[in-house]
Amino acid sequence: MTGSTTLTGSMHQQTAAIVGLGLMGGSMALALRPRVARVIGIDPSAETLEYALAHGIIDTGTDNLQVGVREASLVILAAPVQIILDVIRNRIGSYLRSNTLLIDLGSTKAEICHAMGNLPISVLAMGGHPMCGKERSGIQEADATLYLGRPFVLCAPRRATPAARQRALELVQAIGANPIEMEAERHDRLVAGISHLPYLLSSALVRTIAGEAQADPTIWEVAASGFRDTSRLAGSDIRMMTDIIGTNTTAIARLLALFRVQLATLEAALIAHDDDQLVTMLTAAHDARRTWEAEYLNKKRES
Amino acid sequence: MTGSTTLTGSMHQQTAAIVGLGLMGGSMALALRPRVARVIGIDPSAETLEYALAHGIIDTGTDNLQVGVREASLVILAAPVQIILDVIRNRIGSYLRSNTLLIDLGSTKAEICHAMGNLPISVLAMGGHPMCGKERSGIQEADATLYLGRPFVLCAPRRATPAARQRALELVQAIGANPIEMEAERHDRLVAGISHLPYLLSSALVRTIAGEAQADPTIWEVAASGFRDTSRLAGSDIRMMTDIIGTNTTAIARLLALFRVQLATLEAALIAHDDDQLVTMLTAAHDARRTWEAEYLNKKRES
Repeated sequence: MTGSTTLTGSMHQQTAAIVGLGLMGGSMALALRPRVARVIGIDPSAETLEYALAHGIIDTGTDNLQVGVREASLVILAAPVQIILDVIRNRIGSYLRSNTLLIDLGSTKAEICHAMGNLPISVLAMGGHPMCGKERSGIQEADATLYLGRPFVLCAPRRATPAARQRALELVQAIGANPIEMEAERHDRLVAGISHLPYLLSSALVRTIAGEAQADPTIWEVAASGFRDTSRLAGSDIRMMTDIIGTNTTAIARLLALFRVQLATLEAALIAHDDDQLVTMLTAAHDARRTWEAEYLNKKRES
Repeated sequence: MTGSTTLTGSMHQQTAAIVGLGLMGGSMALALRPRVARVIGIDPSAETLEYALAHGIIDTGTDNLQVGVREASLVILAAPVQIILDVIRNRIGSYLRSNTLLIDLGSTKAEICHAMGNLPISVLAMGGHPMCGKERSGIQEADATLYLGRPFVLCAPRRATPAARQRALELVQAIGANPIEMEAERHDRLVAGISHLPYLLSSALVRTIAGEAQADPTIWEVAASGFRDTSRLAGSDIRMMTDIIGTNTTAIARLLALFRVQLATLEAALIAHDDDQLVTMLTAAHDARRTWEAEYLNKKRES
């Protein structure tokens, strides 16, 4: 952290309000609590609020959005994408103090940043997407180190001010993540490839195997680690995923079209027994995967 | 183990020859060594043989197939599928003693069992496929517990005798695996779904992302655990995989056709914003994946 000044002073003087205490919001609360004056948790579930208080994840909790955010200088929307959109479009604009940083953690950015562009000019709004997660969701999975060393995409809405950008960067740095600034449409194109396409492939694979299992249930018994990994994303939270893919249909449809070409080209070489072509194409995939593993995945693990 | 008699006596009197000392052959050697009189390793690589001897994986080693198998009462072919086929079709029939059990560990079974059906009647031949593995291959990865508690498919060639079947079952039980007997064609249909289709999806996914990366290399940087797992199989050994899929093209082409329907149905609901239909289909996949995880995957981990 540099000694830069901000409109509301440094992180440790701020009151942070986190809307939605799941894995992402709970982890954000844990990461922020030692670095800010106060963390307010906002969640509709009394059970979740009790858990968060009992485990020292938040300082205070409420199920009332307006009450929760009115004293905050930093508001983080960590709910499913459709709820983030509803909160931005219909509710939060009039609740916030001037110069409050409003940032979200939603997995798509174009629709959310578009909605943010219509907020009052006094709100410092910025779209965010931390590139991390866990197989399991919920406050019980909250982890203060979830964001550490991971990419955190920031997307500016129209009319975003330098102050909003700087405050968002300070937040990302405070939780130890690596900020990557880009346009919302570019972000959505990238995640369509590395997240939404894999989810749909995984789900279609499981549906294919479930179809086979109707005639021969032994297929479940012989499935091993290859199926385990390729099918894992099909077990993701349905509400979360349908929210996400429903706000990124164009980018996903484009990626599906490109994927179909790749799969059909592999199939053509396979059924023609064109081994040279098959080996060439599979080797390119093999080398790209291994290079990614060495250059990005293993670095992340070390960090 | 029951007190059943066999044509060559119990396991501990047998001499086992293992053709191919990679992950599967090396692990078989480690699992068998305390249970048989002698383990002979056969591999073209002097370095591999030295490693296996130095680490107590085999009793003796040779690069000569004929020399290696001539005293064996149990021969295990643990090489890539095309080498297994070459050994069965062109070389091993005249090298084996009468009543030797010949079993392979190849990942497809129809072509191999067909070739086994043409061996001399004095050879007790049986097709085998243990449903286990590791991300990395090679003798250095050999593990005495690799087969423990895992399904081990046995496929009888035509003319297979009860003695061959019994000897194969004893071998599978000796290494702690769970035998599942089925026809070779049925096996190949099952693995096309749970192994070969996932491999092709994974490779086509990586090729799609590599194509995107040409315009925007940042995609590699933001890829996270979802891409990691869905793309893992693309990093598999190319020689091994092309051998496998090249001997199962009909079953794979059938599964690809079924997969395309599933993917297209998901895409149609997505682009039509038919949320009810989308949630119904994704929930079926979610529930099937979670049920499999609870009923099969976690049981395997516990075993």
